[in-house]
Amino acid sequence: MKVTLNADLGEGFGPWMMGDDEALLPFIGSASLACGFHAGDPGTMLRVTKLALAAGVSVGAHPGFDDLRGFGRRRIEIDPAEIPAMLAYQVGALSAVCALARHRVTHVKPHGALYTMACTDPALAGALAGTIAGLNRALILIAPAGSALAAAAGRYGVRLAAEAFCDRTYESDGSLTSRSVAGAVIHDPAEAAARAVAMVRDQAVISRQGRILPTRIDTLCLHGDSPAAPDIARAVAAALDTAGISRVSLPELYMG
Amino acid sequence: MKVTLNADLGEGFGPWMMGDDEALLPFIGSASLACGFHAGDPGTMLRVTKLALAAGVSVGAHPGFDDLRGFGRRRIEIDPAEIPAMLAYQVGALSAVCALARHRVTHVKPHGALYTMACTDPALAGALAGTIAGLNRALILIAPAGSALAAAAGRYGVRLAAEAFCDRTYESDGSLTSRSVAGAVIHDPAEAAARAVAMVRDQAVISRQGRILPTRIDTLCLHGDSPAAPDIARAVAAALDTAGISRVSLPELYMG
Amino acid sequence: MKVTLNADLGEGFGPWMMGDDEALLPFIGSASLACGFHAGDPGTMLRVTKLALAAGVSVGAHPGFDDLRGFGRRRIEIDPAEIPAMLAYQVGALSAVCALARHRVTHVKPHGALYTMACTDPALAGALAGTIAGLNRALILIAPAGSALAAAAGRYGVRLAAEAFCDRTYESDGSLTSRSVAGAVIHDPAEAAARAVAMVRDQAVISRQGRILPTRIDTLCLHGDSPAAPDIARAVAAALDTAGISRVSLPELYMG
Amino acid sequence: MKVTLNADLGEGFGPWMMGDDEALLPFIGSASLACGFHAGDPGTMLRVTKLALAAGVSVGAHPGFDDLRGFGRRRIEIDPAEIPAMLAYQVGALSAVCALARHRVTHVKPHGALYTMACTDPALAGALAGTIAGLNRALILIAPAGSALAAAAGRYGVRLAAEAFCDRTYESDGSLTSRSVAGAVIHDPAEAAARAVAMVRDQAVISRQGRILPTRIDTLCLHGDSPAAPDIARAVAAALDTAGISRVSLPELYMG
Repeated sequence: MKVTLNADLGEGFGPWMMGDDEALLPFIGSASLACGFHAGDPGTMLRVTKLALAAGVSVGAHPGFDDLRGFGRRRIEIDPAEIPAMLAYQVGALSAVCALARHRVTHVKPHGALYTMACTDPALAGALAGTIAGLNRALILIAPAGSALAAAAGRYGVRLAAEAFCDRTYESDGSLTSRSVAGAVIHDPAEAAARAVAMVRDQAVISRQGRILPTRIDTLCLHGDSPAAPDIARAVAAALDTAGISRVSLPELYMG
Repeated sequence: MKVTLNADLGEGFGPWMMGDDEALLPFIGSASLACGFHAGDPGTMLRVTKLALAAGVSVGAHPGFDDLRGFGRRRIEIDPAEIPAMLAYQVGALSAVCALARHRVTHVKPHGALYTMACTDPALAGALAGTIAGLNRALILIAPAGSALAAAAGRYGVRLAAEAFCDRTYESDGSLTSRSVAGAVIHDPAEAAARAVAMVRDQAVISRQGRILPTRIDTLCLHGDSPAAPDIARAVAAALDTAGISRVSLPELYMG
Repeated sequence: MKVTLNADLGEGFGPWMMGDDEALLPFIGSASLACGFHAGDPGTMLRVTKLALAAGVSVGAHPGFDDLRGFGRRRIEIDPAEIPAMLAYQVGALSAVCALARHRVTHVKPHGALYTMACTDPALAGALAGTIAGLNRALILIAPAGSALAAAAGRYGVRLAAEAFCDRTYESDGSLTSRSVAGAVIHDPAEAAARAVAMVRDQAVISRQGRILPTRIDTLCLHGDSPAAPDIARAVAAALDTAGISRVSLPELYMG
Repeated sequence: MKVTLNADLGEGFGPWMMGDDEALLPFIGSASLACGFHAGDPGTMLRVTKLALAAGVSVGAHPGFDDLRGFGRRRIEIDPAEIPAMLAYQVGALSAVCALARHRVTHVKPHGALYTMACTDPALAGALAGTIAGLNRALILIAPAGSALAAAAGRYGVRLAAEAFCDRTYESDGSLTSRSVAGAVIHDPAEAAARAVAMVRDQAVISRQGRILPTRIDTLCLHGDSPAAPDIARAVAAALDTAGISRVSLPELYMG
């Protein structure tokens, strides 16, 4: 039994920092790096790639809308026909920066509003998965099981890493509880750790209402931008180790 | 005897156009494409790459400062240590966009102030040439013969395409006449064409003062942003053909 | 009987131009200037303000989303609570630039997707009208009669200039015909001119289906970004003059 | 005897924060706010303006180069003819945002490379001071005594607030010790406080070499982006109070 802990890193821009990338790297298997559109600049991308390589962490692209001010979290009207160039640009930029550090890009995880929109919009999802297939058949796409994006991965023969969240609660329909609901975000490391183990072991999420929702889970996302993030990461990693669940990088999910 | 006519294309951004790329493509052998920092966006890059492929024109990266407002023409203080990530980002982005169109990046020509600064600053030139060598040994670097950038290409074993200008006059020290001097820019297609043939045939530029300055010339740059550009391109191409000078792409310069 | 011809000017950015501002200025009464978020930079704003002053044309702010790449035409998710700062910033910036030229801002017309969204979203419309009222009670707001934005102007006591389009066709429900429908945009100067006179005289638009839709019309918008724009502007102005309809600036609409 | 403690606030952008504005506000008299070019967005500007008003702190504009990635710290080639529009834009934007909060802009302090360049370049300094005089004669300009910028203020009749730094050491020629020299930045609150009192009382700075350099000091700058900043601010404020030196806002420097 194995799982990949993933986190979004390299989310600074120019003089600004976000999150504590170095504190998370010892615990995760794969990092999704911002590519300059919603965050991340070339220098930050290179610096974090080197840190990831040194920590034995695989690297993926975290492409988003060209929206620094909104951090890629604002929904922006987009024609799926724009996706191929927009996605290739960001993945290609990160790939070349990784090559400088003798590391490489092995996955793609859309960021923010682009991710949310692609999870429910089949045309957008298809454009993303189709472009990834065209760029490099070996790339892994992170998406929630059951989403339009996961379906598109299947359609285009792109390897899927099914993602779930151990620091967020779920509703009975399988959606994440809105952040505006009290308790929607879990800050207690012990609770997040217990959830993580149960989710991977049972391949299921448990809703706020106590319902067990079976779902494929290959990778758990750890949010990096809260002060408690390193403590949660440490607790989750330790609990998985204790439970005999191997923590691996995304490419290792598909090996032997 | 052969030469490459090159031009800077894809210099629009979002809703804005610059130059008439389609009018120049029939006459040139290689195009340098803006990569999103001083001009160019993913959609523009893909569109122009497809046009170049259809016209049998090779494509290179035209990386510049991250300065849309100043179009990369303003000198910006830069630490050479920032060059590797900044250059890899832009070359990688264009490479992946080219791959979508089944075309590929075969050269690099720094843009605007970055080009000007690298021609006289050995540290900056070395950072550029060294990064290119690290990215892909087959990449060709466009630079004026005798510049610090050309010297750095030699130092790092990067293939050089020595560039000169047939629509600009030169001073006796080999520098371009300042645009503020009357007559510094040649608008007459016939005059530009005559200069082009003489420059390639004699491997020399002739200064305003009438002095012959021997210099290696592999490629002539045609400026694309003036209304007369297509007429000049047509005249130069015809004159080279008449003189028996082959017009080739940059990679063809280095073949058999 | 009087009307204001208005056009959107100053839509260049850095090295890029759009439209021919100088060709339109002799015919219009008021110009809406981009304020740097979707187009326009300080230098462009100052240059066009001086041209407007010299032509006797009043100036207004044309605030839009912070979206250069999409030219403010992409719908972006926005919380109405963000409007006051976003609007004040752009109006204030233009006001100070106008002051340099000894001209002043007398109206506001939201641009692109912000305009479209505010025409149907009462909360967004209210935030815009309320902010304008707070900035300067004398500012005039351009909006289509009957829109949520026009209604909000009424609610906040902001002076409204009701806008219609003489180079676009209308549907029977009063909406503009989609640009994707053939004939939706009128390119013939004579036809645009005839429509302009009829629209102002009858205070009505006529739908493609021939239906007369009475509507208040204080100002007609002339699109500036087509090659035919100056010819249309000249024809419309001449036809209005012949019909005895005074062409005035927006502030003059509310005088005597 | 009185002095203004000033700090640069509002240096976040979109999702990114910088410094702890709320921790500094109780100790300072005036705040210089980023205006969107190198940092600061409309929402941040409004939020910090409200905090400043509540704290009784006067507000000024902190205009910089349009360079988010470089935070306005990179020298960028600029023609002094571009200064009027660039400066008016930023001051006007902040003025309107301040008006929303019923506060107002009473000073200007150029930021980063623009400040450094204007301190030694008389043409640039003249463009800045001349523009300020044209915008509003009551605006106060912060500049180091003896600089080209201070001289330009005198030439254009702009009120000057002469600035010095109590958390940096000086050389015997009056320049700041380079940050690359050990000890150039003072992190000890007690030492900074002692220096602050001595500097204001003696109207002089003392060089690393122990030389007393008489200089006019109206305002001391507290850097806000170090973790020790609030402790230094508290210590400096307390020491000034103990020494009987009044801490006032910039406009209060010129009253009675």
